Amino acid sequence: MDFDLLRATRILERTPASLRALLSGVGDGWTRPNEGPDTFSAFDVIGHLIDGEETDWIPRAKIILAGGDDPRFQPYDRFRHRERNKGRSLESLLEEFERLRGQSLATLRSFELDEARLDLPGNHPRLGRVSLRQLLSAWVVHDLGHVAQISRVMAKQYTDAVGPWVQFLPVLTDHPVPRS
Amino acid sequence: MDFDLLRATRILERTPASLRALLSGVGDGWTRPNEGPDTFSAFDVIGHLIDGEETDWIPRAKIILAGGDDPRFQPYDRFRHRERNKGRSLESLLEEFERLRGQSLATLRSFELDEARLDLPGNHPRLGRVSLRQLLSAWVVHDLGHVAQISRVMAKQYTDAVGPWVQFLPVLTDHPVPRS
Repeated sequence: MDFDLLRATRILERTPASLRALLSGVGDGWTRPNEGPDTFSAFDVIGHLIDGEETDWIPRAKIILAGGDDPRFQPYDRFRHRERNKGRSLESLLEEFERLRGQSLATLRSFELDEARLDLPGNHPRLGRVSLRQLLSAWVVHDLGHVAQISRVMAKQYTDAVGPWVQFLPVLTDHPVPRS
Repeated sequence: MDFDLLRATRILERTPASLRALLSGVGDGWTRPNEGPDTFSAFDVIGHLIDGEETDWIPRAKIILAGGDDPRFQPYDRFRHRERNKGRSLESLLEEFERLRGQSLATLRSFELDEARLDLPGNHPRLGRVSLRQLLSAWVVHDLGHVAQISRVMAKQYTDAVGPWVQFLPVLTDHPVPRS
């Protein structure tokens, strides 16, 4: 499917409510465990998504739209949230993410993007030349990937509890080396 | 984590709202494609979850609780939904699933399960002896696995659109042979 701003926005604007529906009130037994060292719990993922709003997607879109000789992105810190959110509750992170995402989408609308501007280039520190259209597509996929990750990490809390059913439940075994 | 009825119910009771938040109104471009032959689209998954309410989880729990010499489950038809839901809208399936899940949880509560009854056995056509506790754990994991699957299948609609970002978005590449 080709990128389409309206269709992409339909996913981006739903993510805070999807995460709230999945996570609010389920309890720390589901939301605090991760899949091992340097992997994310559901709690971590919300922090990581907040980092994305503050340091990744819209800031990078602004670098692209500002143009210039070298529209180079800042590297992204995947573990910024660890220090930032010590002592926070999941509920407060869900609220913060919802507020920040609302601001991000208001900013996105204010860009009044057309097809030509969607083709403008940025310079990614590791990927090289990318377009604004690719950045916004990656934002959508990033959201959905982390919803899938949260569901998987929660499911794995019952890996032993399901007994012999483990062989019919691929979500428990498809990621022997988890990637976030 | 050990199975706990209250903790498990917190996931089971949230799934209809999670799916509604993810899917309602996003459009067929996101919800109708699948990952290839004999794999599920988001639309198919909702039908499959409805099949689970009608033919799998609670019906099998009832077989276990009825006891008898051979508490044998009926085989589960993973493609029952294909014929059943032809011509249906996603919205009507989301509503139906929400209603059926509410009934299932009311039935589950009516069982007034204690630790001893959670250990009662059933006879699975392929897995052999399983306990009610394992059945209910598998129900929770099955929900979460299909939320992960829906997110993944939707994300894959933008596999080409993200361009070079594909290497940083494992949800696009972690399932070369998709399993439902």
